[in-house]
Amino acid sequence: MSQAQVSDEDIFNGHERGKLSVAATRPISQARDLSIAYTPGVAKVSRAIADDAALAARYTWADRLVAVVSDGTAVLGLGDIGAKASLPVMEGKAVLFKTFAGLDSIPLVLDTTDVDEIVETLVRLRPSFGAVNLEDISAPRCFELEAKLVEALDCPVMHDDQHGTAIVVLAALRGASRVLGREMRNQRVVISGAGAAGVACAKILRAAGVGDITVLDSKGIVHSGRDDLNPVKAELATFTNSLKLRGGLAEALKGADVFIGLSSSTVPGELLATMAPDPIVFALSNPDPEVHPDVAASYAAVVATGRSDFPNQINNVLAFPGVFKGALDAGATAITENMKLAAADAIASVAADSLAVDRIVPSPLDERVAPQVADAVAKAAESDGVASAISR
Amino acid sequence: MSQAQVSDEDIFNGHERGKLSVAATRPISQARDLSIAYTPGVAKVSRAIADDAALAARYTWADRLVAVVSDGTAVLGLGDIGAKASLPVMEGKAVLFKTFAGLDSIPLVLDTTDVDEIVETLVRLRPSFGAVNLEDISAPRCFELEAKLVEALDCPVMHDDQHGTAIVVLAALRGASRVLGREMRNQRVVISGAGAAGVACAKILRAAGVGDITVLDSKGIVHSGRDDLNPVKAELATFTNSLKLRGGLAEALKGADVFIGLSSSTVPGELLATMAPDPIVFALSNPDPEVHPDVAASYAAVVATGRSDFPNQINNVLAFPGVFKGALDAGATAITENMKLAAADAIASVAADSLAVDRIVPSPLDERVAPQVADAVAKAAESDGVASAISR
Repeated sequence: MSQAQVSDEDIFNGHERGKLSVAATRPISQARDLSIAYTPGVAKVSRAIADDAALAARYTWADRLVAVVSDGTAVLGLGDIGAKASLPVMEGKAVLFKTFAGLDSIPLVLDTTDVDEIVETLVRLRPSFGAVNLEDISAPRCFELEAKLVEALDCPVMHDDQHGTAIVVLAALRGASRVLGREMRNQRVVISGAGAAGVACAKILRAAGVGDITVLDSKGIVHSGRDDLNPVKAELATFTNSLKLRGGLAEALKGADVFIGLSSSTVPGELLATMAPDPIVFALSNPDPEVHPDVAASYAAVVATGRSDFPNQINNVLAFPGVFKGALDAGATAITENMKLAAADAIASVAADSLAVDRIVPSPLDERVAPQVADAVAKAAESDGVASAISR
Repeated sequence: MSQAQVSDEDIFNGHERGKLSVAATRPISQARDLSIAYTPGVAKVSRAIADDAALAARYTWADRLVAVVSDGTAVLGLGDIGAKASLPVMEGKAVLFKTFAGLDSIPLVLDTTDVDEIVETLVRLRPSFGAVNLEDISAPRCFELEAKLVEALDCPVMHDDQHGTAIVVLAALRGASRVLGREMRNQRVVISGAGAAGVACAKILRAAGVGDITVLDSKGIVHSGRDDLNPVKAELATFTNSLKLRGGLAEALKGADVFIGLSSSTVPGELLATMAPDPIVFALSNPDPEVHPDVAASYAAVVATGRSDFPNQINNVLAFPGVFKGALDAGATAITENMKLAAADAIASVAADSLAVDRIVPSPLDERVAPQVADAVAKAAESDGVASAISR
């Protein structure tokens, strides 16, 4: 599919009046329907929930409703464009939750960028939803926000720009490694970008047993000798860069097996030439990859991007619908590291059916992905002991 | 229709997994759809809104989305049962918004009963919705909350238990007066209940020119000689009870033309016998009217209740869908008194087509009502100068 087929007119027409609507699960066509859905019948259901709060999970939509939450501070590659302007992205997310996982979700965009105010707002709204998908929130605030929300809420919370990306990157790296016959533990990975996605990728790759990870921010390689690291990067420095490299991308890439681009920087082809033979290159900056995939292909054995008009599209939609469905199916009170790893494995398993250098991940439209991810995530929730007693 | 046809099983089955779902307005079936609704296409829409915030009204659902907000402190006749237990009512409301006015709405129920915290929460969420329907919030907090929200938000805000009820009561009183050939200004009205609905009814009936209004709370007639009145009741005392009555229901009803029951008290038939000849009796307590409609009918010329199994059902659903639709159609920044009066007139106009003592208001399922209410409300918004430049 070529992106050239989609005109601006198509895009704006596709957003006219928004992309979401609310529907009644049962039609109201006669007085009897009204007596059931509204007064007087509804009083019996409200009274039942007042007597036993657990019944809300059965008789309302809230326990399976995902709040798609943003403050508009890091919208796609557009930066801090505010809550209103972030809405089309959040509506798109809700469309994908529905399409791929059958989950209902509502955008909640906030006119505050204060982390504690956002936490407070969601704590107050807690009875309204069953899970929180954080979206497009700037780093390093996103780390603090997610950590505080996980602490404050007894339901699944996930910042998709971090973990959705990390899960799909791990799945793609599994696919690329398999197709090239390599082990995770033997690979040296360079991640360009220490924002939301870069940090989460480093963590999940470590958890998956990747041999060495080097992360770069705008100042160069993140290492413990630097005195300009925020707490998140300082933590990164404790478990990355085992070779104690110093310098920039040139120093990091020399001899590396994998490049993962998660910033909007550019990478010249000559640098890729200094990597180990037949490297793996994930140029994920969107819409402009760090290196054009055709250029990357002349150096690398496997190339992936975030774009739909090239093979190997690394897109969060492979992860988040199934992750939230699995967490909600299990009645999970949190999303654990094992649940994320299980999600990546499930995505990689679907890809394994037709693995090739240009098919390291399933298509974003592959309908098998979300159910398999959900199953794997629900099982991991159970074995991690975060699944609640209520089974669905 | 008899309510006996609806079993508890019917009611609970009708609530299984909730009454709402979110739907995508356009299906996602191919890569092209994904490129439009999500990345990379959505970035163009977000950028356009960042450049011109007014475009959010056109390209997102938020500007026409009604937040149905409750803290669960006064749910139906069940009292303070909390946010979770209020959810079935809020979902029912959202179903009715959709069914009768085609409006999307989402329940937002809050785990705080602090008025300022509720205001603060909705101010922070302002970019997420286009109007606020307050619901099932206890008096007198509901008056303060509504006033503060109207002040804080530049969008339509209405506490339906107050104004939805008041609008339909006024419409019903117009119907009853017409069918009996009486003038509003000549009638003496007794309202039992000085909560959300009672106060709003007193105000709208005054605005509609009713001759005299006497309001009772649990202590008896509200009058300026009492030293136990909260500020809202003290204000009521300034424009009601022109006859300077003292005492309870017996003193108030003697010679009165209209009784409006909006509390859960009971009214013995003998008291109705002391009213003026052929009185009008609205026994609106739900599910148990203040006086059984069969008993009331032996004294009164016109009887109405809130129940669907008797004629003349006074139900808010006649008002709120059309009121919000009209306000949003007009891009109204507020809901004015004239908009409410216009809504009541529109409901009464529909009833006028087939007016009879047992048809003083249209059926709650009458599909003509909401569009006519919306038209009238939008026109009133324009003549009141609260309609924004953006016309739909």
